[in-house]
Amino acid sequence: MTHPAAAIAPPPIPAAKIGRVGVGVLGATGYAGAELVRLLRGHPAAAVLALGSRQHAGELLSRHWPSMPDLDIRLEAEPERPEAWRERGVDVIFSALPHTAFASRAEAYLRAGLRVVDLSADFRLRDAAEYRRRYGAEHPAPHLLDRAVYGLTEWCGPELEAAELIANPGCYATAVLLAALPALAGGWLSGAPILANALSGVSGAGRTPSLSTHFVECGGSAAPYKVAEDHPHMGEMLQAMRRAAEGTPSLVFNPHLVPMARGILATVALPLARKIDPEQARALYLSRYSRGDESGFVRVLETGQLPETRHVRGSNRCDLGLRVCGGGRQLLVFAALDNLVKGAAGQAIQNWNRAQGWPEATGLPLAGWTCA
Amino acid sequence: MTHPAAAIAPPPIPAAKIGRVGVGVLGATGYAGAELVRLLRGHPAAAVLALGSRQHAGELLSRHWPSMPDLDIRLEAEPERPEAWRERGVDVIFSALPHTAFASRAEAYLRAGLRVVDLSADFRLRDAAEYRRRYGAEHPAPHLLDRAVYGLTEWCGPELEAAELIANPGCYATAVLLAALPALAGGWLSGAPILANALSGVSGAGRTPSLSTHFVECGGSAAPYKVAEDHPHMGEMLQAMRRAAEGTPSLVFNPHLVPMARGILATVALPLARKIDPEQARALYLSRYSRGDESGFVRVLETGQLPETRHVRGSNRCDLGLRVCGGGRQLLVFAALDNLVKGAAGQAIQNWNRAQGWPEATGLPLAGWTCA
Amino acid sequence: MTHPAAAIAPPPIPAAKIGRVGVGVLGATGYAGAELVRLLRGHPAAAVLALGSRQHAGELLSRHWPSMPDLDIRLEAEPERPEAWRERGVDVIFSALPHTAFASRAEAYLRAGLRVVDLSADFRLRDAAEYRRRYGAEHPAPHLLDRAVYGLTEWCGPELEAAELIANPGCYATAVLLAALPALAGGWLSGAPILANALSGVSGAGRTPSLSTHFVECGGSAAPYKVAEDHPHMGEMLQAMRRAAEGTPSLVFNPHLVPMARGILATVALPLARKIDPEQARALYLSRYSRGDESGFVRVLETGQLPETRHVRGSNRCDLGLRVCGGGRQLLVFAALDNLVKGAAGQAIQNWNRAQGWPEATGLPLAGWTCA
Amino acid sequence: MTHPAAAIAPPPIPAAKIGRVGVGVLGATGYAGAELVRLLRGHPAAAVLALGSRQHAGELLSRHWPSMPDLDIRLEAEPERPEAWRERGVDVIFSALPHTAFASRAEAYLRAGLRVVDLSADFRLRDAAEYRRRYGAEHPAPHLLDRAVYGLTEWCGPELEAAELIANPGCYATAVLLAALPALAGGWLSGAPILANALSGVSGAGRTPSLSTHFVECGGSAAPYKVAEDHPHMGEMLQAMRRAAEGTPSLVFNPHLVPMARGILATVALPLARKIDPEQARALYLSRYSRGDESGFVRVLETGQLPETRHVRGSNRCDLGLRVCGGGRQLLVFAALDNLVKGAAGQAIQNWNRAQGWPEATGLPLAGWTCA
Repeated sequence: MTHPAAAIAPPPIPAAKIGRVGVGVLGATGYAGAELVRLLRGHPAAAVLALGSRQHAGELLSRHWPSMPDLDIRLEAEPERPEAWRERGVDVIFSALPHTAFASRAEAYLRAGLRVVDLSADFRLRDAAEYRRRYGAEHPAPHLLDRAVYGLTEWCGPELEAAELIANPGCYATAVLLAALPALAGGWLSGAPILANALSGVSGAGRTPSLSTHFVECGGSAAPYKVAEDHPHMGEMLQAMRRAAEGTPSLVFNPHLVPMARGILATVALPLARKIDPEQARALYLSRYSRGDESGFVRVLETGQLPETRHVRGSNRCDLGLRVCGGGRQLLVFAALDNLVKGAAGQAIQNWNRAQGWPEATGLPLAGWTCA
Repeated sequence: MTHPAAAIAPPPIPAAKIGRVGVGVLGATGYAGAELVRLLRGHPAAAVLALGSRQHAGELLSRHWPSMPDLDIRLEAEPERPEAWRERGVDVIFSALPHTAFASRAEAYLRAGLRVVDLSADFRLRDAAEYRRRYGAEHPAPHLLDRAVYGLTEWCGPELEAAELIANPGCYATAVLLAALPALAGGWLSGAPILANALSGVSGAGRTPSLSTHFVECGGSAAPYKVAEDHPHMGEMLQAMRRAAEGTPSLVFNPHLVPMARGILATVALPLARKIDPEQARALYLSRYSRGDESGFVRVLETGQLPETRHVRGSNRCDLGLRVCGGGRQLLVFAALDNLVKGAAGQAIQNWNRAQGWPEATGLPLAGWTCA
Repeated sequence: MTHPAAAIAPPPIPAAKIGRVGVGVLGATGYAGAELVRLLRGHPAAAVLALGSRQHAGELLSRHWPSMPDLDIRLEAEPERPEAWRERGVDVIFSALPHTAFASRAEAYLRAGLRVVDLSADFRLRDAAEYRRRYGAEHPAPHLLDRAVYGLTEWCGPELEAAELIANPGCYATAVLLAALPALAGGWLSGAPILANALSGVSGAGRTPSLSTHFVECGGSAAPYKVAEDHPHMGEMLQAMRRAAEGTPSLVFNPHLVPMARGILATVALPLARKIDPEQARALYLSRYSRGDESGFVRVLETGQLPETRHVRGSNRCDLGLRVCGGGRQLLVFAALDNLVKGAAGQAIQNWNRAQGWPEATGLPLAGWTCA
Repeated sequence: MTHPAAAIAPPPIPAAKIGRVGVGVLGATGYAGAELVRLLRGHPAAAVLALGSRQHAGELLSRHWPSMPDLDIRLEAEPERPEAWRERGVDVIFSALPHTAFASRAEAYLRAGLRVVDLSADFRLRDAAEYRRRYGAEHPAPHLLDRAVYGLTEWCGPELEAAELIANPGCYATAVLLAALPALAGGWLSGAPILANALSGVSGAGRTPSLSTHFVECGGSAAPYKVAEDHPHMGEMLQAMRRAAEGTPSLVFNPHLVPMARGILATVALPLARKIDPEQARALYLSRYSRGDESGFVRVLETGQLPETRHVRGSNRCDLGLRVCGGGRQLLVFAALDNLVKGAAGQAIQNWNRAQGWPEATGLPLAGWTCA
């Protein structure tokens, strides 16, 4: 016996209707790049046609990622003229190269008619001087900064639809901003400093080996780094906060490396201008993130529950837990996400879905892995 | 521009044609049970309709698995009469209950017209006396032993098509048998003892907390246990080996617990009757497992390559590495699989696919996760 | 050739002069209890004479801790009359039993002339009502609360010399208080809430298995718990803060479990009443903790350095890193310690050393392990 | 009250009697080098006077090992003439440099009257041609090979007393040989191949970062490497086996990397010439390793017990578990040790103690850490 009504079933997919769009990925051997490949190959509307690699052109991707042995696709150097890929059917480029490595070529891709989604920091800031201060380098393409859309998806408006150049937010920034913006935009904050602590898995440090990512060094240890006002993500966090509310917020951001492969857990303390109760806090956040049909990726947990990174591993979700304390004058927001999915490749695809006019969740996992 | 030809694209799925088959899962809160749910909900022909739990009936599955928050499905006690679930559309039961917990009720399910896939050890052995010796318990339903098909999928013949009662192999047994059977069935072995060492991730020990699975105890440590001839999987390994080749093989099996969540790595040393060279070994294994179209889950790596558990995490693959040594008189086979997928839930679904007459790979991942 | 002057040599030990003092340990099979045994057996003035266990009396300690196979000592039930142990030469009892398990018998030990060092929470709070609120239980011996000395060693004055009943601080409280008290006692704080976030290794949750300490659950994941004002250590932290400075400080405390066996990393944000610069901060903390001869366990790192838990594993140190931000109006203090040493067994011995009139560092490691 | 008789007390140390011997360590920033420093500073007869580093001369050791902040000792380049260190009182050199990096200078140290303990592979093999085959390099000082004593301590005879040039065994070799030699030397083996599988912690791969030691890659994964007859330790294992028994044993050795910082677990299968029972096996091994007074570092566990690496972390022990199977014709020996202690720095000191004529266990830990 077979029957149509399924309690648990994969969501309807628009594949058959929309055909497939050709995709190129730059920096495909790194963690974010490989995660893009992993997710895009399950995307019903994507056809991955070109994988760029600066160091490994000519090799099979599966040599670098034996977990995907069925991918019989060869890494290649970026073409001199983006039109070469365009002619092979590539319509969008996702760049997972490090900052400053791609930005100077972005314009050529745009001119050739490709959409560009950049996962590096290069197009996140509006101000080239701020970029210089945060990243210690001249911006390679300052004239494009105005054209880029900062893709914190849930906070993007119509500017994301049909966007040609999308700056994908940083993993820490995504967690902290999703946690802070509702209260900030709601005008709830007192003006006292926002304190954001965050824990990151080691994949956030990239795939290039270093002493600080050596198993024996970081395994079994917790370490703060680039604390207070030192982390370059401070720039995009402050910029987004200023957009959401008048005035210059004060922010202290303390990232920590902890021994897990994936995940970010942000603990954001928001000092409030007036007393609130837990129901008000939950109502505000739900009004921001709830979709009615439970389809959204940002989920406000039940009162009393707190997010854990294991629950979002492999998922594009960001789970938020709320807590009111300090006599109602302090709102704590805990945010958990997978740094490689909602913090990188997943959100990039989410943004691309929006720019293409597809349902935002197309090809993206809401559920995470059981254990890993 | 969109275009139909995709270099990397999801495989064609038979969903639209075949409708959906109603599925029930028993023991849904454990690791294997939750992995069944995770995989079945992505299966194009499955509709998960009932989740049984002995201890948590009435609770939401998502309470036990917050990684799947979109699963608005409630755990329930097994019905007194299987017909109750049958009437709700359940056509197949996957039981992930521990051994002896389900077997006495299997017949009722079969009589009610349901197919049964049992992930426990209960229907793996043909001989009730052997069961008693290995598991220290009387078999709850010895008269069914003859009806059960031992589902080491790649070694199953026509008996698996339309099978009503499928005994899913143990995770260790799957790794060791996939590694040893080609040489054994090929008549290559000398008769000297086969030595199989294996490393298992901690999820293999189940979800019930114990001192040996406490993070502080097993983290950062390696430990052998139930070595030599003590592990109960010895029974099904020897039984399958005897089926593959005449005579009683001698087997030493040493399992070890190592600090990873998922994965089995088996190192199987096979003493040979005559000298071989690496090409012969590879040819034999390829002839057994290669599908021509690269669609198979058991993959023989290139000469010189060795499998690693990280490459199969989340995948239904079993990667095999071959090595000839001892002057050509010893064949080493290294096998890596994910104990919860090919070693449990994935192989269970693979068997069910076969029994339903669907393509074996339906709904099952060939690629693994990037990192975890 | 031999020669007397050694660049690196073990510190002089007072053993020969002082003889040995008989020690009993209660709760010797748990993590803190076993750590007491490990450290005390290397203590030049201690002779471990009795090990108490509620559940395992009659068994060898080495059965529970095979890492100490040379310990041919049998666990025993606590004697009905402490005099029985006194007569065998036991002069001091270290109790590593959980809270409420020992306090009712403390008086009998004191009367029998034994010194008592309690590692549980039972004698930390002065106020029985506060105890009830924090621990949800009536205090078993409220009349002793006034007699107990709260042993945050570096902040103890003459009351610790010859103390008979010592309440050893909690691991979190030790980290947070060592970080916050200098600024607080210096009158530097503005009165805005102190925000203390902390990361703990899994041994902090004890040795009794539970789902939250299962390797597969907590491995590779970060999780907040008992946040804001919920953690019972809030009581002792606030009490110690009030002692150090007038007024009622406001404190938010967010503990997180991260996948490491040992270690606490506390990140404490202190809002300041007036602007300071990094040199002032460092000078204040050095004036509090520096010993001139570098012998102290609380070490203020160089400006720009941040502590990591791997650097204090196995050591009785607490490393502090300072950071001024927010335009000089915010002091961040990062504290790293080993929860089983400075956060439990080590500090207990440090307190005992003081009470005995010995050098505080006797038998305690300043250096940590290389890697673990 | 104090009293002399202590149930658990540190062993008597010969310090006062023997003065201190000056020690130099080469390669002090690596894992084995730092472990030497950690152990030697607790050694009652050692005075660490010089630390050599090829890359970090002029820097404080504590910069590389903040876990030892009290070590106010500066790394230096090796002197051009060893006499320079000799004059400062250095009597022995422990070299923890990689193979080929030190051997050419060994003779100069010996001539200058220093004892040399080399932890690299360079002086382990007797035969320069075998060295070339195993390590792919010409031996830098073949004329010294005859003078070196291979320091598998428990198997050394009088040649170790007063030895001037000691070749410290490899970590894998130590585990496999301690497991196999008693049966081999006892003439028990059948001549069929010995099969040795081994699991190693990541510190065994050294401190230089690489992709294979990146936390995200090796964390949560098990991987075989250099299997069958490929690992260079094969050379010293076969050499030592041939010394212990006539004939050329056949050996298959399969090392695996597993996600732990420290530890080796070897599983050695020994095919026997005649049937034995468990008591005979235990008697043979006890006769080899038991000291009567329980002071030995190689410990034969009770029948039925198996060693685990967590029980030897931080200890100089090697725990052995025995198992007879295959109808009495197969002896399994499981060996656990800490690769940085008994597998490197600890055994080096043990050998040095013997060469100095001191009790073998001087300054070496028999007990391991509780948890790590």
